[in-house]
Amino acid sequence: MINSPPRVGILGGGQLAQMLCLAGAPLGLEMHVLSPHPTDPAAQVTGFWQKGDPSNPRDLKSFAKQVDLLTFESEFFPASLLRQGLSHAKLQIFPSLSCLESLQDRALQKNLLLTHKLATADFMLIRSKQDLLLAFKKFHNGFVLKKRTNGYDGNGTFYCHSRQDLAKLEQLLPQNEVANLGFIAEEHVSFRRECALILLRTNKGQFLSLPLVETKQKDSRCDWVVGPEKHADLKKVTRKLQNLLKKIDYVGALGVELFDTGHKLLINELAPRVHNSGHYSQTALNFDQFQLHLLCGLGHDLPKIQSLSRAFAMVNLIGGANLDVAFTSGFNKHQSELHWYGKTQSRSGRKLGHLNLLGDNKQSLLKILLKERRTFKL
Amino acid sequence: MINSPPRVGILGGGQLAQMLCLAGAPLGLEMHVLSPHPTDPAAQVTGFWQKGDPSNPRDLKSFAKQVDLLTFESEFFPASLLRQGLSHAKLQIFPSLSCLESLQDRALQKNLLLTHKLATADFMLIRSKQDLLLAFKKFHNGFVLKKRTNGYDGNGTFYCHSRQDLAKLEQLLPQNEVANLGFIAEEHVSFRRECALILLRTNKGQFLSLPLVETKQKDSRCDWVVGPEKHADLKKVTRKLQNLLKKIDYVGALGVELFDTGHKLLINELAPRVHNSGHYSQTALNFDQFQLHLLCGLGHDLPKIQSLSRAFAMVNLIGGANLDVAFTSGFNKHQSELHWYGKTQSRSGRKLGHLNLLGDNKQSLLKILLKERRTFKL
Repeated sequence: MINSPPRVGILGGGQLAQMLCLAGAPLGLEMHVLSPHPTDPAAQVTGFWQKGDPSNPRDLKSFAKQVDLLTFESEFFPASLLRQGLSHAKLQIFPSLSCLESLQDRALQKNLLLTHKLATADFMLIRSKQDLLLAFKKFHNGFVLKKRTNGYDGNGTFYCHSRQDLAKLEQLLPQNEVANLGFIAEEHVSFRRECALILLRTNKGQFLSLPLVETKQKDSRCDWVVGPEKHADLKKVTRKLQNLLKKIDYVGALGVELFDTGHKLLINELAPRVHNSGHYSQTALNFDQFQLHLLCGLGHDLPKIQSLSRAFAMVNLIGGANLDVAFTSGFNKHQSELHWYGKTQSRSGRKLGHLNLLGDNKQSLLKILLKERRTFKL
Repeated sequence: MINSPPRVGILGGGQLAQMLCLAGAPLGLEMHVLSPHPTDPAAQVTGFWQKGDPSNPRDLKSFAKQVDLLTFESEFFPASLLRQGLSHAKLQIFPSLSCLESLQDRALQKNLLLTHKLATADFMLIRSKQDLLLAFKKFHNGFVLKKRTNGYDGNGTFYCHSRQDLAKLEQLLPQNEVANLGFIAEEHVSFRRECALILLRTNKGQFLSLPLVETKQKDSRCDWVVGPEKHADLKKVTRKLQNLLKKIDYVGALGVELFDTGHKLLINELAPRVHNSGHYSQTALNFDQFQLHLLCGLGHDLPKIQSLSRAFAMVNLIGGANLDVAFTSGFNKHQSELHWYGKTQSRSGRKLGHLNLLGDNKQSLLKILLKERRTFKL
């Protein structure tokens, strides 16, 4: 008889949960998923799917009984509801609910960054329409209005660079919504490029940091990633981030989005989970972010990370991407590694898959991938 | 709405089915599995598992209704029963039942090799105890007795090199068993090393051949694999094998086990499925044998295969291998990619997982893997 494998529960059934499942099984883990639909990407790749809503304390309670460890594919399950559902559960939750709580709210996250002297765009809380006007006066370069919680891929994000923008915003956001939801206004930052980084910390305090990458956003969504990148400020920023993670006893993978202003790396956002900017690791490293996230929670020491090539690239397949067309028209010419998420609905802007590629030169890899991506379009 | 994904059914739920599922999902396939137990390795990694016995025509019939394509993780489901269960099913079966039929019987397979002028050890049919004596007289270097069907990993294989061996064999095998089961006696071959090869053919007739590898058998089971290897005879053997596959309209991956006698490559056995000797491809190639097998059945053109390193190695984790011990004692020092199958029972000689590694030098890779494997032992 073999020892029972650790049972890992994931809240949410999207592509991040799917790739956690696909990475966890070969490590000998029993991968459980709680999500609403049997067609959810992660539900399709495990024998241990449970129908339910991770934000429903009752569903959560029954799910928690079946697993030894619990983790998240999204930071937006309200921590208060999670606490209700998990109050009596005897399991290890990673990252912890208090970590989730302080990072899922953009205002709390910003304060955490300031406490740890991490450079980030100036911001102010927006609790009323009057506050919007104040922000407009304070931030001469314009500002970005962001929902305090549940914003992702540009959802809940608004740009304000002119009086016209301001007027539109004031119309768009009813007074009560501003007050209820809560927003922050963030000073517009001029940057040379956007970068990102996956940091990991085990439940024994071991740190690991994956290569810095350049990310390209399009319509507020990750469009492509290339790497590895260098930056003079990287070491200092990483050290401060490690202090922050240690302070809040963070366990697991953390996605770090950065603005490269030339001489500095400013923190744009922290995502307490595996992250789109780290998908390249499935192809480019000997261990990927999904495996490493799980190893962090299991309390295993992290292995030495090796790059399998001089350079790597990833492009997202978004919106109307069509797999049939790709296979019919040109998949045989593809050099890249496909990850298709198996979503049953295609919406504009929805992430449907991605392509990874290794090689010697970032720019040529990106060129090949952008060409291969075109075979997915109708 | 996205087009419905192709639904691929796999008969059998072991590690080969598991790795087909893990490879198929990112390609956008719905991976269905028919196997007896929910704890079967493949049942754990798909949301489309169906309880049943692939050799039971009734179970097969109901399974066939749910899928568009059907494939096998084992060649040992009796073709006659498969025919019964699938007679009215409208689906593509790859490889075809007639291919399965002519390869699952060692005597038929031997004849097929001879027809295509592929060099292989001399053999004779054994239908009685008298035949055993004839074989002993005919094959001066000794012989291997093999069950015509259902032999794997040394099961159903007996060596005969002396009069004592012969006497033991005659005792071991009751007269009726010899007559009923059917055996072949194969002349003992002196070889320098064993090799293997994965060949693929699409349903449109496109061929692909993966690198030749050296394999090490231990107690009649694959112990390790290194590659890529060269052989002066490889081109000729591959061409003849392609003729054979074309002749029987074979579709999918074919595992080819070879004896390297120095100047020649003799065919040891053909396995009409993905094969242990091809597991290295998960790490060493841009597309692995599992993805490629599925692409063959789907009728897609095969992509160009690229090696990601100069050399690769794989070792099997067999028998009493223990995952907990490995993680506790040394997984952090591992450089290799682990594939653990999640079997719930450990038996002596049972394949429980494998390790893959890339690098520049076969021998050093093998050395590292054999060392890493030791961390799995109690």
